[in-house]
Amino acid sequence: MDSITIIAMVSIITAGLTITIGVIGPSLAEGKAVATALSALAQQPDASATITRTLLVGLAMIESTAIYCFVVSMILLFANPFWNYFIDLAAGI
Amino acid sequence: MDSITIIAMVSIITAGLTITIGVIGPSLAEGKAVATALSALAQQPDASATITRTLLVGLAMIESTAIYCFVVSMILLFANPFWNYFIDLAAGI
Amino acid sequence: MDSITIIAMVSIITAGLTITIGVIGPSLAEGKAVATALSALAQQPDASATITRTLLVGLAMIESTAIYCFVVSMILLFANPFWNYFIDLAAGI
Amino acid sequence: MDSITIIAMVSIITAGLTITIGVIGPSLAEGKAVATALSALAQQPDASATITRTLLVGLAMIESTAIYCFVVSMILLFANPFWNYFIDLAAGI
Amino acid sequence: MDSITIIAMVSIITAGLTITIGVIGPSLAEGKAVATALSALAQQPDASATITRTLLVGLAMIESTAIYCFVVSMILLFANPFWNYFIDLAAGI
Amino acid sequence: MDSITIIAMVSIITAGLTITIGVIGPSLAEGKAVATALSALAQQPDASATITRTLLVGLAMIESTAIYCFVVSMILLFANPFWNYFIDLAAGI
Amino acid sequence: MDSITIIAMVSIITAGLTITIGVIGPSLAEGKAVATALSALAQQPDASATITRTLLVGLAMIESTAIYCFVVSMILLFANPFWNYFIDLAAGI
Amino acid sequence: MDSITIIAMVSIITAGLTITIGVIGPSLAEGKAVATALSALAQQPDASATITRTLLVGLAMIESTAIYCFVVSMILLFANPFWNYFIDLAAGI
Amino acid sequence: MDSITIIAMVSIITAGLTITIGVIGPSLAEGKAVATALSALAQQPDASATITRTLLVGLAMIESTAIYCFVVSMILLFANPFWNYFIDLAAGI
Amino acid sequence: MDSITIIAMVSIITAGLTITIGVIGPSLAEGKAVATALSALAQQPDASATITRTLLVGLAMIESTAIYCFVVSMILLFANPFWNYFIDLAAGI
Amino acid sequence: MDSITIIAMVSIITAGLTITIGVIGPSLAEGKAVATALSALAQQPDASATITRTLLVGLAMIESTAIYCFVVSMILLFANPFWNYFIDLAAGI
Amino acid sequence: MDSITIIAMVSIITAGLTITIGVIGPSLAEGKAVATALSALAQQPDASATITRTLLVGLAMIESTAIYCFVVSMILLFANPFWNYFIDLAAGI
Amino acid sequence: MDSITIIAMVSIITAGLTITIGVIGPSLAEGKAVATALSALAQQPDASATITRTLLVGLAMIESTAIYCFVVSMILLFANPFWNYFIDLAAGI
Amino acid sequence: MDSITIIAMVSIITAGLTITIGVIGPSLAEGKAVATALSALAQQPDASATITRTLLVGLAMIESTAIYCFVVSMILLFANPFWNYFIDLAAGI
Repeated sequence: MDSITIIAMVSIITAGLTITIGVIGPSLAEGKAVATALSALAQQPDASATITRTLLVGLAMIESTAIYCFVVSMILLFANPFWNYFIDLAAGI
Repeated sequence: MDSITIIAMVSIITAGLTITIGVIGPSLAEGKAVATALSALAQQPDASATITRTLLVGLAMIESTAIYCFVVSMILLFANPFWNYFIDLAAGI
Repeated sequence: MDSITIIAMVSIITAGLTITIGVIGPSLAEGKAVATALSALAQQPDASATITRTLLVGLAMIESTAIYCFVVSMILLFANPFWNYFIDLAAGI
Repeated sequence: MDSITIIAMVSIITAGLTITIGVIGPSLAEGKAVATALSALAQQPDASATITRTLLVGLAMIESTAIYCFVVSMILLFANPFWNYFIDLAAGI
Repeated sequence: MDSITIIAMVSIITAGLTITIGVIGPSLAEGKAVATALSALAQQPDASATITRTLLVGLAMIESTAIYCFVVSMILLFANPFWNYFIDLAAGI
Repeated sequence: MDSITIIAMVSIITAGLTITIGVIGPSLAEGKAVATALSALAQQPDASATITRTLLVGLAMIESTAIYCFVVSMILLFANPFWNYFIDLAAGI
Repeated sequence: MDSITIIAMVSIITAGLTITIGVIGPSLAEGKAVATALSALAQQPDASATITRTLLVGLAMIESTAIYCFVVSMILLFANPFWNYFIDLAAGI
Repeated sequence: MDSITIIAMVSIITAGLTITIGVIGPSLAEGKAVATALSALAQQPDASATITRTLLVGLAMIESTAIYCFVVSMILLFANPFWNYFIDLAAGI
Repeated sequence: MDSITIIAMVSIITAGLTITIGVIGPSLAEGKAVATALSALAQQPDASATITRTLLVGLAMIESTAIYCFVVSMILLFANPFWNYFIDLAAGI
Repeated sequence: MDSITIIAMVSIITAGLTITIGVIGPSLAEGKAVATALSALAQQPDASATITRTLLVGLAMIESTAIYCFVVSMILLFANPFWNYFIDLAAGI
Repeated sequence: MDSITIIAMVSIITAGLTITIGVIGPSLAEGKAVATALSALAQQPDASATITRTLLVGLAMIESTAIYCFVVSMILLFANPFWNYFIDLAAGI
Repeated sequence: MDSITIIAMVSIITAGLTITIGVIGPSLAEGKAVATALSALAQQPDASATITRTLLVGLAMIESTAIYCFVVSMILLFANPFWNYFIDLAAGI
Repeated sequence: MDSITIIAMVSIITAGLTITIGVIGPSLAEGKAVATALSALAQQPDASATITRTLLVGLAMIESTAIYCFVVSMILLFANPFWNYFIDLAAGI
Repeated sequence: MDSITIIAMVSIITAGLTITIGVIGPSLAEGKAVATALSALAQQPDASATITRTLLVGLAMIESTAIYCFVVSMILLFANPFWNYFIDLAAGI
């Protein structure tokens, strides 16, 4: 295998694994947060404004960790600095 | 194996693994959220409007993480930049 | 092994694994949702309409993640773009 | 090993694994649903009609995910497109 | 190893694994269902008719997933299409 | 290694694994069922007839899944169709 | 390695693994059953006859699954059909 | 490696693994049984005769599964039929 | 493979794994913190100011551990000292 | 490697693993038994004689399983029949 | 591969793994501590000063273990003594 | 590698693994015993003499299993019979 | 690979793994201790002096185990006796 | 690789693994003991002298198992008998 094939192969595998493993934690955490919000609402309907606001802030924080993985996955697919280096190398010769 | 076979092989495996591992977390999280919503409804039927709304917002957030995986899987199957590069290379020669 | 055998081999394995691992999460999540719906019904029989409606919405959301896996598995078996490429290549020569 | 042996070998392994791993999730989920239905019946015998109906709907949804795996397993054994391709190839020569 | 040995070897391993892994889920699920039925009977002896009927329906559903695995295992041992193909091939030559 | 050694080796390993992994699920499930029966008896001694009957039906269902594995294990040891084929082949030559 | 060494090696390993993995499930299940019997006795000393009888029936069922593994292990050590075949073969030549 | 070394090596490894893995289940099960007996005694000191008798019966059943493993381990070390066969073979030549 | 390809390959894999494994812990921890905050709010709505402040401080601490991983991942992709060394080496020659 | 080195190497590894894995189960079981004894004593100080006696009997049973592993480990180090065979063989030549 | 490539490769992998595995424990521990602080606040709002102070001390202790990993990761990337040795060696020749 | 290097290598690895894996069980068991003793003391301070005595007896039993591992580890490092054999062999030649 | 490269490579990997695995246990234990301290404070604010003192003693004990790992990791990086030996060897020649 | 490199490599890896795996159990056990001590103090502040004394005794016992691992790790790094043997051998020649 030449260098450019290796880089492409590794980028595909890593891009897929990064997003797929990376959503396990955030999705379970969001599920837990939403579930607690629902039982909190059932227990104290009057505090629904505060609960909703706190829930959204929390979901945003948790979602941000999934976004980190998505960003790295996208970088590996569409703005991969190592791939660009080898493409330039191949084009330059 | 030549480069194009390797890229195809790796893309198939990664596309499958990305979506299949990627739905484990979101589906369990949605199951938990729906389950809590149901017991919240049983406990406080009067708050069903608030509960349903919060549930839908939560499911949307959780589903979004599954969508990330589905998108990456589709990109790998139908808009794979590395595959396109090698196809062009093979066609150009 | 030539390219076309590799692609066929990899497609079979990935198609099987995608659907089989992909149903673990959704099926457990549906089991949890149905179970909670049943105990919610036992606890509050009067709210059976709301509970049933919420259960069906939730099951649809969860089932959708299993469908993603099934779709990818079917694509790999019957509309595999990489397989088609190599079939065309083999037929063209 | 020639191509047709590889495809046969891979199809056998994948067909077996697909159904055997694929029933773990659904069977556990059905066990949970049935168990909850039984304790719901013990708690609220008057709601047995609603509980039975909801249980059957739920079991159908869960069983459907096991059916997906069974279908893929049967396709791999008896209607395998890749196997057919190589059989035709072998017969044609 | 020639083709027919490989197919035989793979069929034996897969047949064994399919049934042995395939009974883990159903047996645990049946254990859970039976256990809950027993405590439901202890809690509400008057509903024993309904409980027994629901239990049997549930066990039938769960057992069906074990049957899928047993069927695939038997097919691999005694009606294996790939094995038959190679046997015919060996006999024909 | 010649074919007949491979088949013998694989049959021994698979026969052992099939029964040993195959009893894990059923034995744990029976343990759970028996345990619940005992605490149900302690809670409601008057229903001992119904409880015993349900327990025996349940144990029979669960034991059946262990029997499937035992049957496959015995088939592999004493009525193995692949082994017979190669024995006949070796004897015929 | 010649055939007879392979068969001996594989038989030893499989015999050991079969019994050692095979007792994990039954022993844990018996531990659970005995433990529940003891707390049932503490809770309802008057039902000790029924409890003891049910416990013994249950332990017999569970022990039977361990016996299956022990039988297969003994068959592999002392009445191994494949070993006998190769011993006869070696003696006949 | 010649045959006799392989058999010796495999026997040592299997003998060790058989007893070491084989005591995990029984020891945990005995710990659970003893622990429940102790809390049963604390809860109902008057039933100490029945509890002690049931505990000893239970421990004997559980210990029997550990004995199976110990017996197989001893057989492999000191009465190994395969080892004897090769020793006789080596001595006879 | 030459040195520069190895470094690129290793950097891609490590960058992906670092962020994807690194978000599992923080996201689950944030989910737990948010969930407890929501049930604390439902239990004591009057203390919402203190709860919100403590939640934000806690989330910041937890998020910081995810940031460590993100920083290392970015360093590996865009400011990798080892990559720079080999690039300079390749350019200098 | 000659035979005697292999036997020595395998004996060392197996002796270490046998005792180290073999104490996990017994030590956890003893911890559970001692812990329950302590809370039983706190709950019913008057029954301390019976509790202590039952605890010691139980600990002796559990410790016996650890002793099995220790005995096998010592046999492998200091009275290894296979090692003796090869030592005699080496000395005899 | 020459020495300098190996050292670079190993340093990259280890630096990534060190920080990513190293934050799992601390982040989960911080999540637990923050969560308990929140429910402690909800239960006893008057003690918020003491709770906050103890929380901050605890978080500092826990964060310190994450810092250890971060420090080692940074040392491996930017002040690696082994890398420096080989760089000096390469430069000196 | 010559024999003496192999024996030294294997002894080092086994000595380390034996003690490190061997303390997991005992330390957790001691933690559980000490923890229960502390809550027993809090619940029944008057029985502190009996509790302390039982705790020390229990800790001694549990520690004994860790000592077994330590002894085997020390034997492997400083009184290794296999190492001595090869040292004598090397010195004798 | 020559000796010095191997030692460097192994030292880097071991140093990273030692600290990263070594903080998992202590950090979780500290999280548990801090969490319990917080709920103890909420339950009994008057005992805050005793609780804080006991917490600090406990954290010091737990942190000490993390320090052991950090020390070994630092020794491997900056005072590695094996590395020094080979450096001296390389410099001396 | 020559003998001395192998011994050095193996000693480094084993020393690191011994201490890092060896602190997992003790640190978790200490965390549990400290946590229980804290809630025991909150529940029964008057018994703080007895609780503190018992805690310190328990922590000493648990810490002793971590010390065993630390001692073995230090022996492997600074007083390794196998390393000394080979050093002497190398120096003597």
